[in-house]
Amino acid sequence: MDKNEIQEGDLVELIGSKHFHQIIRVRTGEIIQSHIGLMKMDDLIGKPWGSVGKSHNGNIFFILQPALSDLIKNVPRNTQILYPKDIGFLLLNLAIGAGKHVVEAGTGSGALTIALANAVGDEGKVFSYEARPEMQKIAKENLQYVGLDSRVIFKIRDIVNGFDEENVDAIFLDLPNAYDYLSQVRKSLKPGGFFGSILPTMNQVTLLLEAFKRESFAFVEVCEILIRYYQTDADRFRPVDRMVGHTGFLIFSRMIQKKASSFPTENFDICGTDSSDQAI
Amino acid sequence: MDKNEIQEGDLVELIGSKHFHQIIRVRTGEIIQSHIGLMKMDDLIGKPWGSVGKSHNGNIFFILQPALSDLIKNVPRNTQILYPKDIGFLLLNLAIGAGKHVVEAGTGSGALTIALANAVGDEGKVFSYEARPEMQKIAKENLQYVGLDSRVIFKIRDIVNGFDEENVDAIFLDLPNAYDYLSQVRKSLKPGGFFGSILPTMNQVTLLLEAFKRESFAFVEVCEILIRYYQTDADRFRPVDRMVGHTGFLIFSRMIQKKASSFPTENFDICGTDSSDQAI
Amino acid sequence: MDKNEIQEGDLVELIGSKHFHQIIRVRTGEIIQSHIGLMKMDDLIGKPWGSVGKSHNGNIFFILQPALSDLIKNVPRNTQILYPKDIGFLLLNLAIGAGKHVVEAGTGSGALTIALANAVGDEGKVFSYEARPEMQKIAKENLQYVGLDSRVIFKIRDIVNGFDEENVDAIFLDLPNAYDYLSQVRKSLKPGGFFGSILPTMNQVTLLLEAFKRESFAFVEVCEILIRYYQTDADRFRPVDRMVGHTGFLIFSRMIQKKASSFPTENFDICGTDSSDQAI
Amino acid sequence: MDKNEIQEGDLVELIGSKHFHQIIRVRTGEIIQSHIGLMKMDDLIGKPWGSVGKSHNGNIFFILQPALSDLIKNVPRNTQILYPKDIGFLLLNLAIGAGKHVVEAGTGSGALTIALANAVGDEGKVFSYEARPEMQKIAKENLQYVGLDSRVIFKIRDIVNGFDEENVDAIFLDLPNAYDYLSQVRKSLKPGGFFGSILPTMNQVTLLLEAFKRESFAFVEVCEILIRYYQTDADRFRPVDRMVGHTGFLIFSRMIQKKASSFPTENFDICGTDSSDQAI
Repeated sequence: MDKNEIQEGDLVELIGSKHFHQIIRVRTGEIIQSHIGLMKMDDLIGKPWGSVGKSHNGNIFFILQPALSDLIKNVPRNTQILYPKDIGFLLLNLAIGAGKHVVEAGTGSGALTIALANAVGDEGKVFSYEARPEMQKIAKENLQYVGLDSRVIFKIRDIVNGFDEENVDAIFLDLPNAYDYLSQVRKSLKPGGFFGSILPTMNQVTLLLEAFKRESFAFVEVCEILIRYYQTDADRFRPVDRMVGHTGFLIFSRMIQKKASSFPTENFDICGTDSSDQAI
Repeated sequence: MDKNEIQEGDLVELIGSKHFHQIIRVRTGEIIQSHIGLMKMDDLIGKPWGSVGKSHNGNIFFILQPALSDLIKNVPRNTQILYPKDIGFLLLNLAIGAGKHVVEAGTGSGALTIALANAVGDEGKVFSYEARPEMQKIAKENLQYVGLDSRVIFKIRDIVNGFDEENVDAIFLDLPNAYDYLSQVRKSLKPGGFFGSILPTMNQVTLLLEAFKRESFAFVEVCEILIRYYQTDADRFRPVDRMVGHTGFLIFSRMIQKKASSFPTENFDICGTDSSDQAI
Repeated sequence: MDKNEIQEGDLVELIGSKHFHQIIRVRTGEIIQSHIGLMKMDDLIGKPWGSVGKSHNGNIFFILQPALSDLIKNVPRNTQILYPKDIGFLLLNLAIGAGKHVVEAGTGSGALTIALANAVGDEGKVFSYEARPEMQKIAKENLQYVGLDSRVIFKIRDIVNGFDEENVDAIFLDLPNAYDYLSQVRKSLKPGGFFGSILPTMNQVTLLLEAFKRESFAFVEVCEILIRYYQTDADRFRPVDRMVGHTGFLIFSRMIQKKASSFPTENFDICGTDSSDQAI
Repeated sequence: MDKNEIQEGDLVELIGSKHFHQIIRVRTGEIIQSHIGLMKMDDLIGKPWGSVGKSHNGNIFFILQPALSDLIKNVPRNTQILYPKDIGFLLLNLAIGAGKHVVEAGTGSGALTIALANAVGDEGKVFSYEARPEMQKIAKENLQYVGLDSRVIFKIRDIVNGFDEENVDAIFLDLPNAYDYLSQVRKSLKPGGFFGSILPTMNQVTLLLEAFKRESFAFVEVCEILIRYYQTDADRFRPVDRMVGHTGFLIFSRMIQKKASSFPTENFDICGTDSSDQAI
């Protein structure tokens, strides 16, 4: 349970007029310079969350605690990132929870890394592989900024050489050629473990589907998640004019025993107890 | 990090031919009776996850660790339940994580309760209100079954009389008339706290939007999440013919200071740093 | 069947580099001035459709016959227009075809008017009402430009005063308060006639649904049509990143006898022969 | 403009309780036998459209004029058929209108054939190819039933041997291997002509996209159309729980001169005048 008043070291989300929007860590003595004026951080400390502040020239702004989804959407990035609509679903499908050991590759800008680190708790661990050093540098800074870096072990590595870990609970690959690394996944994922990936094109998905058969991954699910926002005017309730049409296809499967793969799993129902569940 | 072999007391997901699908807790000595034959639980103990078992009459079945999404979709129910596509997203948007105190009403069959209890960890707490005793009885059993009941405090209560808790981090209402209870929410939610709800009809959503204005809830987001599944045949890759067209509208907002509500928040951008984020 | 060569008076769609895109009627002697150079119309005449032309400074452009959907999307406008995804569907649902008499209000920029005029043929008629003279002026010019104005009778009129026509086959209202005019529709639509409307907000739709009950319109259908475009790269086949999230809700119903309205029609199935059709 | 009273020979749509729904041609003296009783056709003649009839045992039913979409959805079939949501859009995109000459293959059950025949009018022609005689027999009967067979020339033919027609305005292929027949299309489609196809899987779409490059078809568009129905209860306005997730991908392109194909057309904008149109 969190404190009710803002304290030194808290992450605050400041939202003001003229599209001012910033997530920052409160440091005594520091001053925020923005296009709606200067904001003394000292003035924030001790204020209740949800209250209103004023910049030196009188512009007001709200002081809120950022949601994990806000932190994710605000990470400095030099790559396409995963978004909450996809992350929230994959966390549940990969059974990511307190104490789990999870491998991800590549690290990218660390958006997913933040969500994984948040979910595994202090008892868990995230092992995050990335081939491009400059990329992982940004991700590290992002994790430090949100204070979750202690749960993450970053590695600079082309995963063609495999992962150091063994028997991890889940592995997620956010790599264009995820289908090339299933044998490496096989060595590090524990029996029956959870595998997931996100791929932008159907061509990539079909290659991964073929790789699953070769490498004895079963109970495959492929889906995409669409989010549709609505105007919040009660008198003119309607969907927003524009929406994101595509981020990527989510692919999930379970690693089974090599010999077990001789059994057909197509007809096996892993999506729940009835057809209505199957479609959800 | 979980063990690699199945042990007494583990929850196992058994998936076999003829649509056999069951999630059950392993108890030595017990025998599962199913339409594909009898299965001795003793035979499961010690087996690696992901391996294959045989029923007394030779039908094979896979032994997997259930994902949280599997547990949720399998809860015995006598109500419409929330589904992983919606739950995963709301957990991120309500900043549910280790140590948080969360209030939900109504309990329903406990599908969301399971996800909340899983996310708050041992340090957190879920306070779950339900007006119908017979309903909460099922939810309690469901939480006990997945071993998360110690994190949940169940209360039989019509929340028109308010909540016992104060300054909780987040409140989620899964009630048809959620808009009637914002003053009660106001008393128990901490300043700036996270509020969420799911409502099936647009009429209900517009009533909630009006209530937000009266009760000083700002930074409102309304969305719906659609999940589209694909056939997993690499040679005939296509969306499945049928999909779930609607579960409910997700509504999120933040509780701000009463006086602060005099400031217009419509133009304030809470959805992230750029328009592409806004739409995700 | 159309000619194979371009002739004086033909509508041509010229598409060139640098996003040059223009639909124009061929007139001997005239010259097109564009940001990719000058184009002599005389050079177009006699060329086969689908061939390539060159501007005075060597920029190439394709010469195509515009589809009706191209003409619709290109109308000069000062209003939101209906789009082919919605128009194509409503033409079938309102049984618009050769020889039909159709009333529309308001005219707007004439995008739907073009489609209606095209569908009713020379034997049919479109009666198009608009309260704002300056608006209908644009629509008239648009109809003349595509050569379909002879099939349309334009009227400047606030339809609160009703329509001049009687027993028309179908009436379509593209007006924010369509629900205010059902009694006027009743006077001019033939028994059992087809009624349609498009409305952007759910508030408007619910008001129309209530009006249907008062005015004995039955067999109501409400739907929206979403169009999702794909990248056309065979090696990276994927949906486009952005899509239109909403244009409007399409509402269809049939006018029945006043006394007949005492019979419940909710359970009556007008959507086809089986449930799979019902959802299409 | 249609008559106001039902006459001998009219197609009527009869809709009653207990899901009674039938489209039939009125023949004096005939009697309809249904699960809601016997209906004398003679009783229908002279009645105004939209009125109510009674079966011999007192069950009431409505008498309506079928929309083209109703006729299409009701065709007796032994194949998957095209649905109005797709047909309406492709008619506009292929510029199908009065007087056009259109080739389609395969005929299938004739659902699209009905829509094409309706659109080309008495001055136009539809040439419909089908390899399976028994299939085209059903389509012929369907066209005769709706009274549009005079506009259609049916041919039993494997189109690998090409089409008899030359310089037709548009060709639509509803064949799983549409990509195998572009050279045949090339011979019969007029320069710049409209080509369209519908394919269920992405694998087929990518093969067609590759064939377009080989055969000089440009200005390619690939899309899918989703239709979402809503409950029509004004007090509980919401999308229906289930929807059709997929029928097929619609593919459109224009045939250009062989030599012209050396010009890149990817950057050429055929979707309208601005980006908002491009996405519609």
